[in-house]
Amino acid sequence: MIKAEIIAVGSELLLGGRTDTNSVFLAELLAKQGIECRFKTVVGDDIDDMCAALTVASKRAKIVLVTGGLGPTVDDLTREAVAKVTGQPLHLRPQALRSIQTRFKLAGRIVSKNQRRQAFLPLGADLLRNSSGTAPGFSLKWKRCRIFCLPGVSHEARKMFHESVLPLLVKEASVGGCLESRTLHTFGLTEGVIDERIHGIVPDASGIRLGILASPLGISISLNREHRDNHINVNTGKDKILKHDLSLEYYLEQLFKILGSYVYGFNGESMEEIVGKALTARGLTLALAESCTGGLIGHRLTQIAGSSVYLDRGVVCYSNQAKMDLLGVSKNLLAKHGAVSEPVAKAMAQGIRQRSSVDLGLSVTGIAGPGGGSLSKPVGLVYVGLSTPRKSFTKEFRFHGDRKMVKLRSSQGALDVLRRWLFSLPISDD
Amino acid sequence: MIKAEIIAVGSELLLGGRTDTNSVFLAELLAKQGIECRFKTVVGDDIDDMCAALTVASKRAKIVLVTGGLGPTVDDLTREAVAKVTGQPLHLRPQALRSIQTRFKLAGRIVSKNQRRQAFLPLGADLLRNSSGTAPGFSLKWKRCRIFCLPGVSHEARKMFHESVLPLLVKEASVGGCLESRTLHTFGLTEGVIDERIHGIVPDASGIRLGILASPLGISISLNREHRDNHINVNTGKDKILKHDLSLEYYLEQLFKILGSYVYGFNGESMEEIVGKALTARGLTLALAESCTGGLIGHRLTQIAGSSVYLDRGVVCYSNQAKMDLLGVSKNLLAKHGAVSEPVAKAMAQGIRQRSSVDLGLSVTGIAGPGGGSLSKPVGLVYVGLSTPRKSFTKEFRFHGDRKMVKLRSSQGALDVLRRWLFSLPISDD
Repeated sequence: MIKAEIIAVGSELLLGGRTDTNSVFLAELLAKQGIECRFKTVVGDDIDDMCAALTVASKRAKIVLVTGGLGPTVDDLTREAVAKVTGQPLHLRPQALRSIQTRFKLAGRIVSKNQRRQAFLPLGADLLRNSSGTAPGFSLKWKRCRIFCLPGVSHEARKMFHESVLPLLVKEASVGGCLESRTLHTFGLTEGVIDERIHGIVPDASGIRLGILASPLGISISLNREHRDNHINVNTGKDKILKHDLSLEYYLEQLFKILGSYVYGFNGESMEEIVGKALTARGLTLALAESCTGGLIGHRLTQIAGSSVYLDRGVVCYSNQAKMDLLGVSKNLLAKHGAVSEPVAKAMAQGIRQRSSVDLGLSVTGIAGPGGGSLSKPVGLVYVGLSTPRKSFTKEFRFHGDRKMVKLRSSQGALDVLRRWLFSLPISDD
Repeated sequence: MIKAEIIAVGSELLLGGRTDTNSVFLAELLAKQGIECRFKTVVGDDIDDMCAALTVASKRAKIVLVTGGLGPTVDDLTREAVAKVTGQPLHLRPQALRSIQTRFKLAGRIVSKNQRRQAFLPLGADLLRNSSGTAPGFSLKWKRCRIFCLPGVSHEARKMFHESVLPLLVKEASVGGCLESRTLHTFGLTEGVIDERIHGIVPDASGIRLGILASPLGISISLNREHRDNHINVNTGKDKILKHDLSLEYYLEQLFKILGSYVYGFNGESMEEIVGKALTARGLTLALAESCTGGLIGHRLTQIAGSSVYLDRGVVCYSNQAKMDLLGVSKNLLAKHGAVSEPVAKAMAQGIRQRSSVDLGLSVTGIAGPGGGSLSKPVGLVYVGLSTPRKSFTKEFRFHGDRKMVKLRSSQGALDVLRRWLFSLPISDD
């Protein structure tokens, strides 16, 4: 198994509310090639700190991916840091300059002195073409390690990885292994319950490492296994993984059997993808009536390309008046039970379905907090309603967490009710 | 300036789509105390890798914050790693065990053998109380460094930082400095244009470091200055920062003067906060008519507690039928101009305003992609409409990026049109 490390460069990633997201997809892309990312480091735009991070990483790993710090400003120091650490001085690369000039010419601009800095690369570095931005990347072999420097802009880094990093990795990789990985996603069970139920299912002797990860969207279980003796081969790597698939799939199935209807997806599938595919396959249309989620369910469903096929409309009825106007919920019902109640959730789902001429109406009403809670109706109390051609359903949830968490969990709960109906699973707890 | 590092522990942070978010708020909390976080490291649940990360960090920094790996499972190895690196063996801490037992008793459960592992801490460690979870944290002085180990669960880590880490930092800090920081957020200008316009405004001699950060929500400009000679003092630290405030505020004002109406907020304020405050202050109510954003604007506005005061309702009208039914957009208008057009955006905003009896109607219609684009109406073409008591406005945007990016930018563009009207700023470009 080849060891890799990722270094994300940028002071804004240390302080400023920005998270390093490049390393997430880069680690995944590496894993697909059987290369395990063992460390991720974030470092600011400081030449000494960057050199320190590079030195440590290049001693530990065979592959170091650096993202960021390739821009034209004096803050962009990745070129300098690599030159300093490797002892390979910077010099102007005409090919790099030409590609910058071409890009600027197309945009009707002239390359400034600052911009020229981007064309100075360490001696002996391989130029990595940037087909969607100006900053050229580069790669440099140093001692037992190869350093790849990619831009900080996500889509540029992703494209450069595919176009230029991958071919070099394939060419060079002669030792390594494969990392097989499967994930199963659940909603509706606590980490403790899952831990108990699946205890002993995956024996130590299987060589599989089991991980349990809790998030606001549910609990995910991952199965990972390393094959240390395999060689990396991008073309045949997949076949090699498949040979071992039987047994990893076997354990996945065992987990699925035990957790049953609580499993909503596999290997990174999101709830909105699953629900969207099921609606498409069944030719059903959907309309939403959201209260406490404020539009989040609509937002999540419309993140999926093609969602306009099944999502006809949604209403966000934050006020009681909106619930009456847009959904025909009666004033009496609201007065008798309150806006956050099972009967109102049901009336909302029925109202949106009837008024939209769709197959399915999905509603959610609840108390997201921090205010608005009471002893009998605490913050986190949420009702989901589902109106279908034949029958209506409701489900009560009691979520914990702050306002954003309750909204997120409520949206997942509502989509899970829909999923359960679509797959003819029990909507209420076992 | 005291140097700090943060180590986030968890294999799911290396691979599995999870981002390390704890280090974002921990770095901010440290900065408030004048402690600069210089490195963030993510490492998997592997004892050797964790020891390597701890060894490197404790040599470089005076303060090391570790999050994660304190749970009850065999995967949770932070205690072992600290013991190994510092040479302080683990032993049972009765006080830690008692607090776990008390928590379990309240939940009607018994402490299992695994759970007892959480009460074993390195010799000489200070126990850090966990008031919102079971895993106790701890802190250990080692050579010139102090290591703090906090849980991976965000709200537990945050609470423990405030309750237990802060007092220890205050007690120990005898050297250090302060980091002043101000940020200004813009929407509607490119990074290049901003770079040109603000060139030379903040002279090098000011000792202020200027950073420009592009994100889908706009360009942020940060001003940072270090005061190396200051001592950390939590009680008086704020006063010391204030002494230097004048000049940092001066440069912020200069930037504001130049960038004018494109500046929507300062120091981490979000567009939805700004708009929400302005609506509240003016006693105005709002209704939304979203097409391509699919509910994202409603979702963003309702992330803010108290948004029910000004947000009455929203409709997500993905289909033409929904635009006709819910907003009264005429069939002719849709046929003549298409759903993604200036007249339809205006009709949507007017429709939602009139039908909801609110003060303001805000609409957005556009092509989020990847499909649906044409030569005359490419992916990324978005129209925003705003209907007010006196006049209606529209604005055309041409965004780039994928579906999720176009949705995000569209939501920001729509909220920015609203902000401009609320603050009586020109809605169209200068």
